[in-house]
Amino acid sequence: MVEEIFNINKKNFSEWYNEILKVSDLVDLRYNVKGFLVYKPHAMQLIKKIYQIWEEELEKAGHKPVLFPLVIPPENFELEKEHVEGFKPEVFWITKAGDKKIEKLALRPTSETAFYQLYSTWIRSYSDLPLKCYQSCSVYRYETKATKPLIRGREFLWIEAHDVFETEKQALEQVKQDMEITRKVLLEKLGVPFIFFKRPEWDKFKGAVSTYTADTIMPDGRILQLPSTHYLGQKFAKAFNIKFADKDEEEKYPYQTCYGPGISRILSALISVHGDNKGLVLQFDISPVQIIIIPIIFDESKTEILEAVKKIKNMLKEYRVEIDNTEKRPGEKFYYWEMKGVPVRIEIGPKDVKNNQVVLVNRLGQKKTVKQEDLVKEIQKMSVDMYEELRTRAEKYFNSMINDADSFSELEKILKDKGGLVRVNFCSVEKEGEKCAGIIKEKTGGEVRGTKFSESEKSNGKCIICGKKSNCVVYVGRAY
Amino acid sequence: MVEEIFNINKKNFSEWYNEILKVSDLVDLRYNVKGFLVYKPHAMQLIKKIYQIWEEELEKAGHKPVLFPLVIPPENFELEKEHVEGFKPEVFWITKAGDKKIEKLALRPTSETAFYQLYSTWIRSYSDLPLKCYQSCSVYRYETKATKPLIRGREFLWIEAHDVFETEKQALEQVKQDMEITRKVLLEKLGVPFIFFKRPEWDKFKGAVSTYTADTIMPDGRILQLPSTHYLGQKFAKAFNIKFADKDEEEKYPYQTCYGPGISRILSALISVHGDNKGLVLQFDISPVQIIIIPIIFDESKTEILEAVKKIKNMLKEYRVEIDNTEKRPGEKFYYWEMKGVPVRIEIGPKDVKNNQVVLVNRLGQKKTVKQEDLVKEIQKMSVDMYEELRTRAEKYFNSMINDADSFSELEKILKDKGGLVRVNFCSVEKEGEKCAGIIKEKTGGEVRGTKFSESEKSNGKCIICGKKSNCVVYVGRAY
Repeated sequence: MVEEIFNINKKNFSEWYNEILKVSDLVDLRYNVKGFLVYKPHAMQLIKKIYQIWEEELEKAGHKPVLFPLVIPPENFELEKEHVEGFKPEVFWITKAGDKKIEKLALRPTSETAFYQLYSTWIRSYSDLPLKCYQSCSVYRYETKATKPLIRGREFLWIEAHDVFETEKQALEQVKQDMEITRKVLLEKLGVPFIFFKRPEWDKFKGAVSTYTADTIMPDGRILQLPSTHYLGQKFAKAFNIKFADKDEEEKYPYQTCYGPGISRILSALISVHGDNKGLVLQFDISPVQIIIIPIIFDESKTEILEAVKKIKNMLKEYRVEIDNTEKRPGEKFYYWEMKGVPVRIEIGPKDVKNNQVVLVNRLGQKKTVKQEDLVKEIQKMSVDMYEELRTRAEKYFNSMINDADSFSELEKILKDKGGLVRVNFCSVEKEGEKCAGIIKEKTGGEVRGTKFSESEKSNGKCIICGKKSNCVVYVGRAY
Repeated sequence: MVEEIFNINKKNFSEWYNEILKVSDLVDLRYNVKGFLVYKPHAMQLIKKIYQIWEEELEKAGHKPVLFPLVIPPENFELEKEHVEGFKPEVFWITKAGDKKIEKLALRPTSETAFYQLYSTWIRSYSDLPLKCYQSCSVYRYETKATKPLIRGREFLWIEAHDVFETEKQALEQVKQDMEITRKVLLEKLGVPFIFFKRPEWDKFKGAVSTYTADTIMPDGRILQLPSTHYLGQKFAKAFNIKFADKDEEEKYPYQTCYGPGISRILSALISVHGDNKGLVLQFDISPVQIIIIPIIFDESKTEILEAVKKIKNMLKEYRVEIDNTEKRPGEKFYYWEMKGVPVRIEIGPKDVKNNQVVLVNRLGQKKTVKQEDLVKEIQKMSVDMYEELRTRAEKYFNSMINDADSFSELEKILKDKGGLVRVNFCSVEKEGEKCAGIIKEKTGGEVRGTKFSESEKSNGKCIICGKKSNCVVYVGRAY
């Protein structure tokens, strides 16, 4: 009976995903504006943790928090031509206040054009550089593609970091640092594997010189773009007249980068990559409830059990602990808290009280009877082991989903049967490769995601589409 | 010379305020949309701390974080008649996306009408109550009064908590709990004194049964409204059809409250109440930089001093510490960091290195030479003492600004000469008192702020305006 309530089979990933968002009480999709959703406490607690971890890493790397207005006046928004052309179709416009018509204001779809106008006054000399600021906020895009909760919406939560440097070399170093921050958080803290790509010329952020992104693979084999960094060169500096006096007293345009981890998307990756047929699986460090205590109560030993539970909870003050004292049967409670993703469960029954022990079970089903005096130590060990196993499992899947194809038909077959990222020889990621990429897209739905960043992968083969000799290796995948 | 740069005399409060926002690098007022400002790192770091403290207290009191969309469709917004009438003139409307006209959407001026529509689906039975959720976000109001940075703007940061209860009694208890949370944070953690008022009938939140607010007094004697709680009764429950099945299986409308600490305003109070002629004064716990180390360098002892500085910094790992290694003279550095409000300064010169000591100076000018081995202990003590002194100083000023007036002419004189809150006998805070309040407002600019909450103050006198016998005591003040 109970089992059936949460009988969510991850093999049907899309169904599983929609169901888990609902039953584990993460978001409410019934808000009556299309593309906008409500974050319920369970999601918001996770999001606050993810923000905290990410902001901490950004600050360690020298970034400082700021907050720019939500609204951008057209005179800013329209300064960088490519940028405005790219974003214009997606911008929400405010045109009225009360009953009055007012001069129109854009809701930020991203904040380059808000930040950089003031950066032109904040930056005077080389001693003001590097300037590295970030803001945590929501952005707004009138998506016309089908929206998908947490993955593509008209309002989403992110961080945007906007950095300014004296030299191109420093700016390109920042791209590497951003990748390092991404690795530290996404892989090391959240256990979500990814590849960092340099996107092809035709698939850049509008207004950027080049775009770098972290792609992960979802359980259905589709690719999800996670944080990206855009190298802006001097393009925005010129458009916004950002100049600095260098040591030689010459006025120069600085070089810029921007970095954007999408927090809503990262939550969706976290849920999807680690979740299983029983529901969510959350790592110990970020789980809103880290430990659930379930008393196994029989009438004759009720008092002792409840006392023991209280004692155990007191021993665990440094953790986020809850006790399930509801009237449900133990089995029901197990299923419920497993579905919610709580990493550690403590069971205490009459035998345990007598033997001064508890039963520890982690969310991956590993069970251990431990002495109460060893409890804290055992929980620490269990949380580390569980994280390691989650990460290993995720990496194993991720690696199994990266495959080589020597021909177009092989590519087509892998994308159809399995999905993931397919490594192929390709003519070029410069403008002239766009035609071949278009053919792949049209025939398979797969996109050329780019070349691996910071690792040179060279081939001696030929482009699988046009047959031109090429030393370029790209990854193709169907994306969200 | 240096002194003059920051020669900011708090006696001219308004000038002082505008100047301190600029020189201490809190906000940038040059953003090119009226009523919108940019929070620079110094302000944003403070704001993050204030949010953290407030959210922690709200969570201790059983609130959970959520996030509702920025946009509210008219069909929600217009459900509660009084509410919509009150807010309509101030609402920003989105009417376009890209080139397309879309159905208009309000930017939230406050989120009752976003929350409560879904609350009507979240609440089914008494076991779902109390429901206590909060969100930290920006809200948008097209203010037509003159805007003042952090105090009145078209975008401001706040928290809004929306609580639902089975009974009226529980809801009114929540008003008291909100006051307690306000006291804990505002007075005990931030050292900002206030009085909690019940607002008169004619000055309620639109749609509320009654409104309770914390008022503080600014250095110019004007009143600043800080957090407020609105008791909504069943008005919104009826408008949004929020019902629950009670234990007796009867369907009932619940009782609601909402609570809104305005974080931008609280920052302005914090700056204004504690700041002095040298600039900002920040408490140790919330200051972005808690300790500034200033090496007093002479050529012959440079190496030893810099080594000692490094050692000292290592001793203070649990604090937020910076070293000022710039080329400025020590005096200049002192002025700079005092202006920024840094609570503790450590000076280390050749004599100190020799004697294994440092000079500790707090932001209130108290100086002490301490042995290096006692440093941590002395800093802890200094930070506590400084906080106590700040709070005592603030309370002393606050209390001195609360005065009695027995007649209208006395009221007029106090408001003109001194400002603050003036306690007077008044006919009524119900609808029938509005006329007398109007006379006070017209002749003095003062507003009847309400009666003291949770303390009954009774008089046997007569209303200072109409002369009617009354036992009602109100406080009058000129407000921001």
